[in-house]
Amino acid sequence: MKRIGLLTSGGDCQALNATMRGVVKGLSSNLDELEVYGFDDGYKGLIYGNYRMLSSKDFSGILTQGGTILGTSRQPFKLMRVPDENGLDKVEAMTQTYHKLRLNCLVILGGNGSQKTANLLRQEGLNVLHLPKTIDNDIWGTDMTFGFQSAANIATEAIDCIHTTAASHGRVFIVEVMGHKVGWLTLHSGIAGGADIILIPEIPFDYKKIVEAIDKRSKAGKRFTILAVAEGAISKEDAKLSKKELKKKMEEKAGKYPSVSYEIADKLAKATGADIRITVPGHTQRGGSPCPYDRVLSTRIGSAAADLIMKEEYGYMVGIVNGRMKKVPLEECAGKLKMVSPSDPLIEEAKRIGISFGD
Amino acid sequence: MKRIGLLTSGGDCQALNATMRGVVKGLSSNLDELEVYGFDDGYKGLIYGNYRMLSSKDFSGILTQGGTILGTSRQPFKLMRVPDENGLDKVEAMTQTYHKLRLNCLVILGGNGSQKTANLLRQEGLNVLHLPKTIDNDIWGTDMTFGFQSAANIATEAIDCIHTTAASHGRVFIVEVMGHKVGWLTLHSGIAGGADIILIPEIPFDYKKIVEAIDKRSKAGKRFTILAVAEGAISKEDAKLSKKELKKKMEEKAGKYPSVSYEIADKLAKATGADIRITVPGHTQRGGSPCPYDRVLSTRIGSAAADLIMKEEYGYMVGIVNGRMKKVPLEECAGKLKMVSPSDPLIEEAKRIGISFGD
Amino acid sequence: MKRIGLLTSGGDCQALNATMRGVVKGLSSNLDELEVYGFDDGYKGLIYGNYRMLSSKDFSGILTQGGTILGTSRQPFKLMRVPDENGLDKVEAMTQTYHKLRLNCLVILGGNGSQKTANLLRQEGLNVLHLPKTIDNDIWGTDMTFGFQSAANIATEAIDCIHTTAASHGRVFIVEVMGHKVGWLTLHSGIAGGADIILIPEIPFDYKKIVEAIDKRSKAGKRFTILAVAEGAISKEDAKLSKKELKKKMEEKAGKYPSVSYEIADKLAKATGADIRITVPGHTQRGGSPCPYDRVLSTRIGSAAADLIMKEEYGYMVGIVNGRMKKVPLEECAGKLKMVSPSDPLIEEAKRIGISFGD
Amino acid sequence: MKRIGLLTSGGDCQALNATMRGVVKGLSSNLDELEVYGFDDGYKGLIYGNYRMLSSKDFSGILTQGGTILGTSRQPFKLMRVPDENGLDKVEAMTQTYHKLRLNCLVILGGNGSQKTANLLRQEGLNVLHLPKTIDNDIWGTDMTFGFQSAANIATEAIDCIHTTAASHGRVFIVEVMGHKVGWLTLHSGIAGGADIILIPEIPFDYKKIVEAIDKRSKAGKRFTILAVAEGAISKEDAKLSKKELKKKMEEKAGKYPSVSYEIADKLAKATGADIRITVPGHTQRGGSPCPYDRVLSTRIGSAAADLIMKEEYGYMVGIVNGRMKKVPLEECAGKLKMVSPSDPLIEEAKRIGISFGD
Repeated sequence: MKRIGLLTSGGDCQALNATMRGVVKGLSSNLDELEVYGFDDGYKGLIYGNYRMLSSKDFSGILTQGGTILGTSRQPFKLMRVPDENGLDKVEAMTQTYHKLRLNCLVILGGNGSQKTANLLRQEGLNVLHLPKTIDNDIWGTDMTFGFQSAANIATEAIDCIHTTAASHGRVFIVEVMGHKVGWLTLHSGIAGGADIILIPEIPFDYKKIVEAIDKRSKAGKRFTILAVAEGAISKEDAKLSKKELKKKMEEKAGKYPSVSYEIADKLAKATGADIRITVPGHTQRGGSPCPYDRVLSTRIGSAAADLIMKEEYGYMVGIVNGRMKKVPLEECAGKLKMVSPSDPLIEEAKRIGISFGD
Repeated sequence: MKRIGLLTSGGDCQALNATMRGVVKGLSSNLDELEVYGFDDGYKGLIYGNYRMLSSKDFSGILTQGGTILGTSRQPFKLMRVPDENGLDKVEAMTQTYHKLRLNCLVILGGNGSQKTANLLRQEGLNVLHLPKTIDNDIWGTDMTFGFQSAANIATEAIDCIHTTAASHGRVFIVEVMGHKVGWLTLHSGIAGGADIILIPEIPFDYKKIVEAIDKRSKAGKRFTILAVAEGAISKEDAKLSKKELKKKMEEKAGKYPSVSYEIADKLAKATGADIRITVPGHTQRGGSPCPYDRVLSTRIGSAAADLIMKEEYGYMVGIVNGRMKKVPLEECAGKLKMVSPSDPLIEEAKRIGISFGD
Repeated sequence: MKRIGLLTSGGDCQALNATMRGVVKGLSSNLDELEVYGFDDGYKGLIYGNYRMLSSKDFSGILTQGGTILGTSRQPFKLMRVPDENGLDKVEAMTQTYHKLRLNCLVILGGNGSQKTANLLRQEGLNVLHLPKTIDNDIWGTDMTFGFQSAANIATEAIDCIHTTAASHGRVFIVEVMGHKVGWLTLHSGIAGGADIILIPEIPFDYKKIVEAIDKRSKAGKRFTILAVAEGAISKEDAKLSKKELKKKMEEKAGKYPSVSYEIADKLAKATGADIRITVPGHTQRGGSPCPYDRVLSTRIGSAAADLIMKEEYGYMVGIVNGRMKKVPLEECAGKLKMVSPSDPLIEEAKRIGISFGD
Repeated sequence: MKRIGLLTSGGDCQALNATMRGVVKGLSSNLDELEVYGFDDGYKGLIYGNYRMLSSKDFSGILTQGGTILGTSRQPFKLMRVPDENGLDKVEAMTQTYHKLRLNCLVILGGNGSQKTANLLRQEGLNVLHLPKTIDNDIWGTDMTFGFQSAANIATEAIDCIHTTAASHGRVFIVEVMGHKVGWLTLHSGIAGGADIILIPEIPFDYKKIVEAIDKRSKAGKRFTILAVAEGAISKEDAKLSKKELKKKMEEKAGKYPSVSYEIADKLAKATGADIRITVPGHTQRGGSPCPYDRVLSTRIGSAAADLIMKEEYGYMVGIVNGRMKKVPLEECAGKLKMVSPSDPLIEEAKRIGISFGD
């Protein structure tokens, strides 16, 4: 008999349901008795004691279903130890809910922030497992996060669509790709979509280099240029600023440009005279049915989590390294970010075929 | 023996290639000799004499290919009779190219503006056929234009993706759909995507009504509300303005909001306190492979155009009315817009199932 | 207050759920009180009294969901008046369930066979509405059935995939498309997929003509030929047989060929020496999420059905004719089949661009 | 200045064009002079000297295009050293073509058989590189082959479609998946599609175990069971036969069953009385546009091949191991098959969540 809690935290993504299905199928196929508690809207449900018992039926047919059957919310980590407006200590509250339900383990599907909170709960003595969910693929300790490939597919499809229209019209097009402060999603969808220029946060760009790359294409008789731009892309100029200066500058820009692509478009238009169009697929990148790749990954992660629970091994993130499931101690990975190295082989390979990174 | 000119004009869309393939297959299957001239980048190619001869091989394998193998450009109709910077009379120039190549017919794939130019060329004595291309479906005289259903699929997919993320987070989401000054694309993709509120230019909206609709959903326990908003949506207040006043107001807004969705989001956020997210699929709606529906429609239109050319019947748009191909005299349809009537059965049916139009 | 019964009968297809959602949203948006009874597995549930009450929540989120939340079964019409193994008169049983639940209306989603049963129940004095569901589009009295376009998309996608592989290898490929005894699905997906030869039941084929068409392509330097073959395609030879003779011949063939494509492949291989491959997408054509076109159609049909129920107008099929919803008296349409006319404009248009129908 | 030959051999798959684009972009971005010779239809073109010079334009826009711009053919390895009907020694002929064109390197995109031939050409002193193409993912020395993920997507989509129809009807469905003698494709698409039973060649199955698994689902109240069956699946009984006995038995079966699924369906129908349906997506699994995952992989492989050519390092297969490009000596990998180990972690993880392998 096991009593398990499940919650999904942070920005939603594809394959959350597929992963939870993996956990529950992995446990219920091997246990005579299992009780599953699903917390509403991420850590909020744990804090305020909002949950419902789930049966295996709830996990039937959700392998292909986007979103999360539990709901999610962003829970700012830094507020964790700060009492809320009613004087409630949130960590205390979460611990109490956990103990009240006599859980054997709390399984947390979330990204970097949620992982930190998971680690904090571990430090409080709770049995936790963290399953690496994010379209950003920025979680340290795992080669891949679920959601990433599905999001890459959607971003790539957007670039594909832009490709045919760009080829018809002969313009410069920018497709802005999600990914927070890391460039994995832009890098993969940019290469997959055949983007000519890829701008990612880890490689600050130089406007002159972008203009050169556009000119080079024009001279080679190409009718159009497509830029895949990460939402966190940053110019060399801005990258040199101190954190404080940058913050101030970003606030000024926020009034002028809805996002970085608009600034880039503005400056490139001035520099080249080109007609520049922007496409922002936005939240669509988080939505829809998970792709088969993610469904396999999620099922594996869920199944491996079930295995750890059966063996009563807690305090880990369940990642994938070199094609195999790996338990990574939360104390080791929590708080670390997996960024694109400018010398990553993928960057090198992309540059070799002529893709410009604006550097 | 026939000598045919082909051009694609205006914003590109899906199934341009499929349509041209239909024309050329329809002719080459029935003629021993056929010469096809493809003009580069729409009317520009006709004006400046940029063209190339195409063989049947050029039309092989393009049924599923997005964009246009000819390139396109927007040619402002009003400039047609105004000499360009070199003193060139464009209509004169087009007529000359036509005669120089001794064309039997010029086949023009384009939207409303291109149709007007086609009619003008007809008045100049050229043999023309116009094939109704646009994702907006706003061409008078045909029930359907090619490109529309493919674009509706993409816009719907965007709403689908937003649906799963909205359901997970519990927010208000706006998906901005293309369509210029008409609401067909938003109406169809809004219904297909299960949008709760649909705002189209033909039904000016009232902010109070939108807020009511959102509140009603909240009270019914729904976690989220999705708005499908046409890029040309307009408030009742703005709709009452004179053309001049409106133009001035729009210019003011342009500095503040990238598009109408941003204004609506801003006002709704103030009115409801909700966390409102905007997604603008933008030009992706014009791109990618045509859907099977469009491929059938395009093939039919192309084949029907070939039939008219064989019979030497010129001066028509080739449309579809009640499931059958119909030749519509250009003098009858040119300059007319097919808008959504607020009393269209589709509106009525949508309202009956609880969709709000904000009116 | 209304009490409504819902059932889905016959082969499943896409948009069954979308249609039921339309009915229920249309009613619940306009009625203070509504009771919805869903019968399990088609008429079976009505006969044996297996049903459950459904709330509006059951219809939430099912717009995009394939299959049917109620289950379905094929109920052979001819057995209707024959008592079952327990002596049960099925029509009597259905009538009793209807009256026991004091239904105001029974809404039946089904194809031709189910429509006949619906009409029979109407004759027994029940209030029924029939909503035309089938991927075959063979229901008389409506221009379009829901499910058809979604199935056409899947069949077309299969032909698309075969196209790239056929082009690489230089072979003859057959894609077998569903559709029972009618050719609509094969005709539309064949045209959309760019098939070179299309064989449908309504136009019996001649092997010699097919071989000629393949040879013609070879001589024109084409590396491959693709045939879209309806599962009900029939040779001229077989079409001349009496019903009895044909039945006998089909039984003989059944032992030798899993389906008509295998026979055609066998004979063409012998006649041409070509390497012929067969693809049978089969039941995948009924599955998956409904396409946006079908979702709009289904929503309209569902909404129109709700309107009829509000007005207490019963005994109709709800169809679409020339773009508008139309109520068609069941006594008028039941038992009639909508076949492809060999002189249908679509056939003519397809032939004009060089597609062979083997006739 | 480099002179490069390109050929695509064996069954076609997705991302062949994307890979060749990677090679050519990688070279042309770094070389002032490059000559590319494309051989028609695989080794045939090399043997008979059928080729054409390709410009960088030929590789533009083909990233997303399925099939191969060169054509392909299956070249039986064992015939290589056997003179053809005109007394031609094929290996000699290939070597002559290579030398006549003064190639610096021959780049061969192919599967296992083609790899063996590549190695043979290497032994003859030619500079060759082999790029691992196959939907089967059965090439030893690389974690992944291009084409595999795209094929897995198509097979999974087929299972998805069957899922909705199976759920509606309550039947047993078999989806037959490609993969020759290995189970990777069935394993991945089976897990991704949520199949209940997965049969692969590496784990011979027992009919009794399959029946048990179906019964277990029935008892648990599940309406349907889906089997993903590899085209090379084999029963325990057959697996015990000697090679000669098996060959004979397979020949007998060939007359009775078009493929293994039909035999399984037949036997399960007799054992369970269930209504069993078979779907064979067949060659569609090789076709269509490559998925983003494959496009990234292909681009990397192509780029890495270009790097080797620049460095004049020949005689390798370009694989991916633990996320990094790796050159694998052909003498090391040629002739080896990468099969699914019955103790592969993926099998273990799948079993843990209740998937039966019939063993």
